[in-house]
Amino acid sequence: MVSAKSLVKALLIREKYSRLAYHRFPRTTSQYLCSMQQEKWKVEDEVYFHSPPEENEDPYNLDDAPDNLNYVVKIRGGIPYVYDNKEMMEVNEPRSLPYPDLETYTLDLSHVLALIADGPTRTYCHSRLNFLEGKFSLHAMLKEMSELKEVKSNPHRDFYNVRKVDTHIHAAACMNQKHLLRFIKHTYQTEPDRIVAEKKGKKMTLKQVFESLHMDPYDLTVDSLDVHAGRQTFHRFDKFNSKYNPVGASELRDLYLKTENYIGGEYFARMVKEVARELEESKYQYTEPRLSIYGRSPDEWLNLAKWFIKHKVYSPNMRWIIQVPRIYDIFRSKNILPSFGKMLENIFVPLFEATINPKDHKELHLFLKYVTGFDSVDDESKHSGHMFSDKSLNPDLWTSEKNPPYSYYLYYMYVNIMLLNNLRKERGMCTFLFRPHCGEAGSITHLVSAFLTADNISHGLLLKKSPVLQYLYYLAQIPIAMSPLSNNSLFLEYSKNPLREFLHKGLHVSLSTDDPMQFHYTKEALMEEYAIAAQVWKLSTCDLCEIARNSVLQSGLSDKEKQKFLGVNYCKEGPEGNDIRKTNVAQIRMAFRYETLCNELSFLFDAMRTDEISTLSK
Amino acid sequence: MVSAKSLVKALLIREKYSRLAYHRFPRTTSQYLCSMQQEKWKVEDEVYFHSPPEENEDPYNLDDAPDNLNYVVKIRGGIPYVYDNKEMMEVNEPRSLPYPDLETYTLDLSHVLALIADGPTRTYCHSRLNFLEGKFSLHAMLKEMSELKEVKSNPHRDFYNVRKVDTHIHAAACMNQKHLLRFIKHTYQTEPDRIVAEKKGKKMTLKQVFESLHMDPYDLTVDSLDVHAGRQTFHRFDKFNSKYNPVGASELRDLYLKTENYIGGEYFARMVKEVARELEESKYQYTEPRLSIYGRSPDEWLNLAKWFIKHKVYSPNMRWIIQVPRIYDIFRSKNILPSFGKMLENIFVPLFEATINPKDHKELHLFLKYVTGFDSVDDESKHSGHMFSDKSLNPDLWTSEKNPPYSYYLYYMYVNIMLLNNLRKERGMCTFLFRPHCGEAGSITHLVSAFLTADNISHGLLLKKSPVLQYLYYLAQIPIAMSPLSNNSLFLEYSKNPLREFLHKGLHVSLSTDDPMQFHYTKEALMEEYAIAAQVWKLSTCDLCEIARNSVLQSGLSDKEKQKFLGVNYCKEGPEGNDIRKTNVAQIRMAFRYETLCNELSFLFDAMRTDEISTLSK
Repeated sequence: MVSAKSLVKALLIREKYSRLAYHRFPRTTSQYLCSMQQEKWKVEDEVYFHSPPEENEDPYNLDDAPDNLNYVVKIRGGIPYVYDNKEMMEVNEPRSLPYPDLETYTLDLSHVLALIADGPTRTYCHSRLNFLEGKFSLHAMLKEMSELKEVKSNPHRDFYNVRKVDTHIHAAACMNQKHLLRFIKHTYQTEPDRIVAEKKGKKMTLKQVFESLHMDPYDLTVDSLDVHAGRQTFHRFDKFNSKYNPVGASELRDLYLKTENYIGGEYFARMVKEVARELEESKYQYTEPRLSIYGRSPDEWLNLAKWFIKHKVYSPNMRWIIQVPRIYDIFRSKNILPSFGKMLENIFVPLFEATINPKDHKELHLFLKYVTGFDSVDDESKHSGHMFSDKSLNPDLWTSEKNPPYSYYLYYMYVNIMLLNNLRKERGMCTFLFRPHCGEAGSITHLVSAFLTADNISHGLLLKKSPVLQYLYYLAQIPIAMSPLSNNSLFLEYSKNPLREFLHKGLHVSLSTDDPMQFHYTKEALMEEYAIAAQVWKLSTCDLCEIARNSVLQSGLSDKEKQKFLGVNYCKEGPEGNDIRKTNVAQIRMAFRYETLCNELSFLFDAMRTDEISTLSK
Repeated sequence: MVSAKSLVKALLIREKYSRLAYHRFPRTTSQYLCSMQQEKWKVEDEVYFHSPPEENEDPYNLDDAPDNLNYVVKIRGGIPYVYDNKEMMEVNEPRSLPYPDLETYTLDLSHVLALIADGPTRTYCHSRLNFLEGKFSLHAMLKEMSELKEVKSNPHRDFYNVRKVDTHIHAAACMNQKHLLRFIKHTYQTEPDRIVAEKKGKKMTLKQVFESLHMDPYDLTVDSLDVHAGRQTFHRFDKFNSKYNPVGASELRDLYLKTENYIGGEYFARMVKEVARELEESKYQYTEPRLSIYGRSPDEWLNLAKWFIKHKVYSPNMRWIIQVPRIYDIFRSKNILPSFGKMLENIFVPLFEATINPKDHKELHLFLKYVTGFDSVDDESKHSGHMFSDKSLNPDLWTSEKNPPYSYYLYYMYVNIMLLNNLRKERGMCTFLFRPHCGEAGSITHLVSAFLTADNISHGLLLKKSPVLQYLYYLAQIPIAMSPLSNNSLFLEYSKNPLREFLHKGLHVSLSTDDPMQFHYTKEALMEEYAIAAQVWKLSTCDLCEIARNSVLQSGLSDKEKQKFLGVNYCKEGPEGNDIRKTNVAQIRMAFRYETLCNELSFLFDAMRTDEISTLSK
């Protein structure tokens, strides 16, 4: 029986990767890990986000960019190397930034892969998870009324005015279908003669665009707009993706939902800002929309930053995440990219350069203040023939039209983000979290890659299928942004969604909308998400507020905001870190969660000692 | 095998009761029934509702009351008798208004009661219902895309801009919890020193009211307000009822949610009007809130009418229904009422008087223009020891503290409404529909009573348990206003709700909210109801629009409005009666429903003829 030891080793591996990238790792678990190794625990540096500008500050102020460090950056074989100067580059002596090389990574990966297949470990984790579920259900029966009493006597704070963050949402689908429809009609009514596109060198007015599609916007309805997911999209990610094209026309997607087009992404910016205004008015809701960087060209970043600044897209209620679609194969087959390495270069070199020399990259430097992380997105159910190992071709040599596998994407994104974060930390700049889509469909090994490389994940449905991973995600309190309505339309019926079960066991789950345009009906997509979960699963106020609190913790909101929304001690774990006056989460609940986690960790370490003793005595 | 014949007889019985009360009966079924009896079918008079006043008309105009007929009305033994004048009353010669007497009623009732217990009939109905379900599921598989194509090509109309009526909602809970909370806080901030109550002769300001409850409205939250249903209310109608008391204080219910109190129901009226303004802005949503008449005193009607007029509560998007709680036992035990007969008198005599002599009852006459029906409400799961029969005591002799059973309430309400409708029809005044709560819980016999007496019902969950009744409700197309979110908190988990099954089979179902204050989370309760149903049951646009169309048909909206919202031929059944440009329901769907109903009716009549022939040949 080496289950316990292997589980502890897996946690240590995650802690290592987390520390390197300034990702977050729960203090409680970390303390137990330290005490296991007879080390003294200390608070470690974690991610740093900018506080939003004060009301009298200009969020678009380009003048505070720090000086040029004159470092030189070069990505080789997918790994960024930073040199003190050109000379050092020529002699190939990069600054030492420790990173897990491919060998280490594949070794660590295979440890966890072996673990999730190991019989005794599976039994152990399965029974611990059952125990966690049973324990919560007892807690609910015994303490439900006390929790309710506690939140009832909590003045001035209820589910409506606790802060909630929509932790997973795509910017291009952040408005609901009705909103998009109204916006399209409005533009057609107010500016039909504006030139909005260019096709084969011919400039086209808005009216001409619609004429070329044989369409009168007056007749347009949400049905003909056809952006909503339905029964037809279940298990059809391809059909779902095409729902991003209003009326099935990619012309309209380009015009209304893109940042780069003839009108400089103006329509898209206007809609996003309308969504932002609604959030600001609602006061208690925040959102973390994803904008795309594809890696086709290094200019994408500057264009995006300019779009952001030109259209004044900043909102105090939005924090931005960059999503990188895993579609190298498409670009390669169209000969847009020579290798996967070039794609990584296009994505990351501009970020290193803006970090080294912000003065010459003012726009990007500014925009990055409001970016808090990276997402990796695409259909996980697509099968990849390649098995990632230390024998895999390095990105510069990956020139075939085949798409690299999920774990390959994740490793190279992680290493780049990690090294970038270290450089930014050195300069006192904000760092980024890696928050990939993971475990929505496909292989459960995706969840192993993310266990090492991600700060937190979106979806995580497949944790259902692996007790070991589920238990590890519990012990490491890895945040999971779940979107049961999205899953319901794509991969898993609502009633089978594991969210409630995960919440009960104590996994760190939040609720998010994913794509209001495709999935939601009402004007308040996030509230719709909470309402349906509350109704179908009969969640209590305390449950809902716990999820909302989780969402703030998971999010890229700054330390200052988190102090304001959760309490000054939010960094501490357990009831100490909770201010019920701000979160409306009962201390009874917080204490239960904390004690339960401590209990599981103690139990694990006791099991490990017993193992060691029995091994010694053999 | 006399199943078919007995089923036809049951339909004939319902048709008789419907005709008498000017309730609605489907034309298709009626035509089949006529042809069965070799009678010529003709269009019959049905309910008449006032069209809403034009924009330039004053909805509170008291001057158009018709003259006094000088009739005299007297309720004896629960039955209203109308006399041409006092002299005729003295010689006891009432105007002849045919009504089903107790003997007829109990006979008819027992026919249907015997039918639902009859083995062969159950088998027959069960297999027909299975067939209906299977048929729809085939239809969905084959025609889903065609339906979708049809609605997609329908210009300018989609689920968002088809008319929807909230067919079952209680006025005292028509605002959501957050709305009530905000309103309470607002009144406290703006008028703390206003005298709003009188307790033991002592006048109290709003501030004093809250002080006496040891409460500071600033601290109030939706949790402490405690009006939302939760896990605690499941199968506890008593606990649910107490949720109508904000903060558990009946003082606040009196002050904020009642039409009769020290401030003349002003706060309640203001909140109702806020809800109405939101509906008017949304444009496509209508609602039919229930206001209570208890029958404690004959003044209730005048007070209610005055409340309505004084506070100008009229809204084009609201049509009113009067709910009569079945709580005679409570009033009797407090000695407020001497007998059940007196309760009926208090409820109905004012209506007869206002109908006979509107000039002297101007307020009530006006208010009744906006009233479209009656509801009978209370906890159906309460058991009644009494078995209703023609031996039952008549209402004047019902002086015990025991509450009469459900069927007794329904019969006497029906007879009174029916006779009132006949009198009003004679005068060209609007008539009323009887729309009781029925089949939410308790005995399935409630559904038998309603099969005879009701135009349509709210809930109907228990149709799940009786194939015969479910099939009869299908054949007679009895509208059912369902509230799955309400059921989910009180009697039946969402996933077990039969709404989808009923919809598939072709029962005439609509969606309603019941009590937004207790059940809903978002600002748009009805949309929340539709959204959750759509998500959990994966309803298509066509399904949703069919439900919305049903809701308009079921409602008390006037002929003029229905023509506008559904199409000029809405009275016709089948695709002919549907204007897709207004309803967005595919004609393919309409044709399927119509053909299926015709097919079931033919099948039934064929079965009956076969029965007859085989009986003859024996």
